[in-house]
Amino acid sequence: MKGYAAVGGTLMEKATNIPKATITRLSLYYRQLELMEFDGYRTVSSDKLAWLCQVNPAQVRKDLGYFGEFGVRGVGYDVKELQEQIKKILAINREWNLGVVGIGKLGSALLQHRNLQSRGFKCVAAFDNDPEKIGQIGPGGIEIRDINELDKAVRELNIEIGVITTPPSAAQYVADLFVEADVNAILNFSPIRIQVPDCCMVENIDFTVKLDILTYKLRNELGG
Amino acid sequence: MKGYAAVGGTLMEKATNIPKATITRLSLYYRQLELMEFDGYRTVSSDKLAWLCQVNPAQVRKDLGYFGEFGVRGVGYDVKELQEQIKKILAINREWNLGVVGIGKLGSALLQHRNLQSRGFKCVAAFDNDPEKIGQIGPGGIEIRDINELDKAVRELNIEIGVITTPPSAAQYVADLFVEADVNAILNFSPIRIQVPDCCMVENIDFTVKLDILTYKLRNELGG
Repeated sequence: MKGYAAVGGTLMEKATNIPKATITRLSLYYRQLELMEFDGYRTVSSDKLAWLCQVNPAQVRKDLGYFGEFGVRGVGYDVKELQEQIKKILAINREWNLGVVGIGKLGSALLQHRNLQSRGFKCVAAFDNDPEKIGQIGPGGIEIRDINELDKAVRELNIEIGVITTPPSAAQYVADLFVEADVNAILNFSPIRIQVPDCCMVENIDFTVKLDILTYKLRNELGG
Repeated sequence: MKGYAAVGGTLMEKATNIPKATITRLSLYYRQLELMEFDGYRTVSSDKLAWLCQVNPAQVRKDLGYFGEFGVRGVGYDVKELQEQIKKILAINREWNLGVVGIGKLGSALLQHRNLQSRGFKCVAAFDNDPEKIGQIGPGGIEIRDINELDKAVRELNIEIGVITTPPSAAQYVADLFVEADVNAILNFSPIRIQVPDCCMVENIDFTVKLDILTYKLRNELGG
């Protein structure tokens, strides 16, 4: 690890007011570094990492610079070591417990998503309001619970992140249940905005919105 | 429709250099309006629509103002009419043909996703490189084709939007195939950035990135 600053102790002092875009890019750098390690690379320059992630090299250095000194001039970053550091920064160096509400096609896919599991995101509970689903063993071997048991399950299983994969009309109701159960982080797959108090954080996955952006551009920019 | 400007004819002249954030919000307004119609609302004020979508009212008026005059002072927007107008703007007033590559859990979920179908996004082809999957009838009754047949299928089935749900290591290869087949819009679910020429547009769905943002915030902002 010679030449790479040990950031463990001083990391948190430095990491204040980090732009969300930086956090997003760190997550992308991490994935790219995983791929590079898989391909046998031991070091990577900020230029190459930047090119692979489609940002400029100065941005890579600035993003990492918020958290310490990770590279060696003329050598670049150690692929394995930088992954470890980013894992610490993003707090993905431990497991997180997820509860998924809405066990349709998408919810089912998430319950058995390899990428989630391998990254330490563990689906520990599944919920639905459909009497035919409740009590069944769902994908990934997880029992589907009654949505009314959410509060109890959050406490018993230490659910830290709530995942909403219900139809849009149920999303706010489910969000309220998570908030009442003191779950402070929600990943919302339903294509509407949910209202939560400031103590709760929401990230939205709007894939139908992204499709709309593509169709808009196809027609307006490419004449599709 | 009295009081609502007919934008059909002049729409495209006005719609130049629209910020992407505006397009994203239009897509959200549309979804919220759908919900409101379902709940029986006939009109909505910009204040209420803004609150529901968590933007400020001036932003709603500005976003819509790029494309014409849609509201009536003191009355607000006609819920049904505004949906129609936004559909036109976003070019989602017609069907679009999607080709999905990587028929794992996520790809399978997309092939039978109700929201996609009901919104006019039609999965017309599915591809994989797994010999055990190729030739099988996949979810939604769609035959899973050999990835090597992508170019042929794009032409035969008029695939307009490519969807990548492969592992990250295969994403760039698949993107190259879409580009070679003249598919100019790609929805990328793999958590890495793919490289495409300027004539091709990519939207990324990074749900593991969103989880990383949540864990970062849980630890740094809430002390989780």
